[in-house]
Amino acid sequence: MREFTVRPEIMDFAPYVPGLTIEQIQAQYGLKSVIKLASNENPLGTSPLVMKAIERNAARAFRYPENHTPRLTRAVAENVGVPEECVLVGNGSDEIIDMLFRMKAVPGKSNVVFYEHSFAMYGMCAKLCGLEYRVVPRGEDCALPLDGLAEAADENTAMVVVTSPDNPTGLAAGVEDLTVLAGVLPKDCLLVVDEAYIEFAWPPESYSPVEAFDRFENLVCLRTFSKAYGLAGMRLGYGIMPANLAALLRNARIPFTVNLLAEEAGLAALEDDTFFNETLSVVMHGREYFTRELTRLGCKVWPSQSNFVMFRPPMDAKTLFQTLLEQGIIVRHLGSFGLADCIRANVGTDRENELFIKAVGDILNG
Amino acid sequence: MREFTVRPEIMDFAPYVPGLTIEQIQAQYGLKSVIKLASNENPLGTSPLVMKAIERNAARAFRYPENHTPRLTRAVAENVGVPEECVLVGNGSDEIIDMLFRMKAVPGKSNVVFYEHSFAMYGMCAKLCGLEYRVVPRGEDCALPLDGLAEAADENTAMVVVTSPDNPTGLAAGVEDLTVLAGVLPKDCLLVVDEAYIEFAWPPESYSPVEAFDRFENLVCLRTFSKAYGLAGMRLGYGIMPANLAALLRNARIPFTVNLLAEEAGLAALEDDTFFNETLSVVMHGREYFTRELTRLGCKVWPSQSNFVMFRPPMDAKTLFQTLLEQGIIVRHLGSFGLADCIRANVGTDRENELFIKAVGDILNG
Repeated sequence: MREFTVRPEIMDFAPYVPGLTIEQIQAQYGLKSVIKLASNENPLGTSPLVMKAIERNAARAFRYPENHTPRLTRAVAENVGVPEECVLVGNGSDEIIDMLFRMKAVPGKSNVVFYEHSFAMYGMCAKLCGLEYRVVPRGEDCALPLDGLAEAADENTAMVVVTSPDNPTGLAAGVEDLTVLAGVLPKDCLLVVDEAYIEFAWPPESYSPVEAFDRFENLVCLRTFSKAYGLAGMRLGYGIMPANLAALLRNARIPFTVNLLAEEAGLAALEDDTFFNETLSVVMHGREYFTRELTRLGCKVWPSQSNFVMFRPPMDAKTLFQTLLEQGIIVRHLGSFGLADCIRANVGTDRENELFIKAVGDILNG
Repeated sequence: MREFTVRPEIMDFAPYVPGLTIEQIQAQYGLKSVIKLASNENPLGTSPLVMKAIERNAARAFRYPENHTPRLTRAVAENVGVPEECVLVGNGSDEIIDMLFRMKAVPGKSNVVFYEHSFAMYGMCAKLCGLEYRVVPRGEDCALPLDGLAEAADENTAMVVVTSPDNPTGLAAGVEDLTVLAGVLPKDCLLVVDEAYIEFAWPPESYSPVEAFDRFENLVCLRTFSKAYGLAGMRLGYGIMPANLAALLRNARIPFTVNLLAEEAGLAALEDDTFFNETLSVVMHGREYFTRELTRLGCKVWPSQSNFVMFRPPMDAKTLFQTLLEQGIIVRHLGSFGLADCIRANVGTDRENELFIKAVGDILNG
């Protein structure tokens, strides 16, 4: 086979190793039912209004979508309370991260800064974009190192990324601390706050700087429909950013990245207050339950503002993960995040949560 | 508002100017019904099997898709008759073009070569990737300049792009000519054949080099579900390429770009032979009708192997376009392709085709 030159940065990406699907786990371990608490999906599934919107629009699948998803962009702007010009809807918030890294930062010159034990997309995307990236160590107990981020940034830093609430710890940065960080960054540096889990933080005004968006000049917030809105399969997210930056990114983007049914699903999801509020209720109740019960079982549990909890069990975490898997309960072992002694489990339905806690208890006490 | 440095390549992209939607045209011109022959969408709409698949899977919208769309990848490989390792499914074939330009070509060193009056995505994507691009002039009557492409390529050319069947002319390159071109390109240069409309070329074995894929070492073919399979709104396409190149691209790509319902829709579309064959029948019949009738009306019509025809009317093309629009018939004026004296109209249903020809006749003779 002929060998081709490719960009040197591309040569040594590790192959993606997919997790087993629910069907594969059922087959492999001979299980009737499987509980998946591994991907921070919505415990209530898909909103009934969303399902109706998808069914109603299925016949339109042959039509091209409108570029830049204008109807959903308007609805998001209204929902969030920012000008429409500041909103960019993407094929998942991953597309917006990629656009920011790709368009704002200059390969060979700019750097991007984020912290360790964070979403693999940041490092991967920086590498793909040919950017230097600086990974700031965390403090004790994985605290968010906001001071460290500020110290690592210099005049060539295109952006500093904070995930808040954070994945996988569940910790959230307060608005005051984010405001200070935004203020001390170099003039050309963006503060990117990845708010994939922000809807679960309580009270919201203590955590999301979007509530005071007009006070910031260098703030970008990323949000997603994958979690609180239950649309992980539709690939739908958005960025909120200064209007002049959004305009540049919008002009240079690849056309028609957002699926037509995704736009309809997003519009319906924003309308379904009942589903959204029930989701928050189930998640907040469930994470309290997880925190209390896992602590009782001898685990160290991180305080979560998200739809999952991270915990360190009093036994080998990989073994606990594997034993749960064989019983049909999928959680996330955090080896790939560099936290091999920890596990992340997202909140499920009340029944799923109870089965999970019972299984952990039986294993730890067994 | 604070100004931020962005990559210099990003600064001067022109803002996207969307066409009017069907609803906007109805409102603006007071029309009850509108016929859209402007975007090369499927004249039969969405396959009934696809609609059922979307409806059946709507409840799964809250689940993440499987990365790299493995089930559809296998089905495509079987359908096309190439090894699974050679297939990369993307969020539209646009994602695959972007991956090729972004990952294979080295900014500041590589160049890409394509010809004038072609799909705007190539130039835009090359610019976004910071690549030199060489635009080869066409011969008389917009013939595909395959010799010119070969002459423009040098040892720094990462790839040469041919659209066949071509958009907007409808012309197609024969397999023999493409084989010669592949053979004379420099060793490190890919021949990328964008086959968005290949299903409409007849007979297929005369036009698609995929039929003899194992004879090539540097061939990449791009295909889409947007046209013959009626899934423009789902954003679904794929590339067929050497397995070692596909593996590198797969490892470095942004995760989860393809929507879960798009994968299901694609699987169903590949199963629906009836819809596919009816589409081909309507398109081939319709393009003969367009060619005959537009010629009779005094237009120059290019011979089409696609689901549209390009023609030069015996009057100002922009005026004809605008007059048709006011009557509720949307076609594509080709000013943006650099062919301001031409129009492109895709085949619709038999009734839509007749209304279009009648309207053109009335305007030309009126």
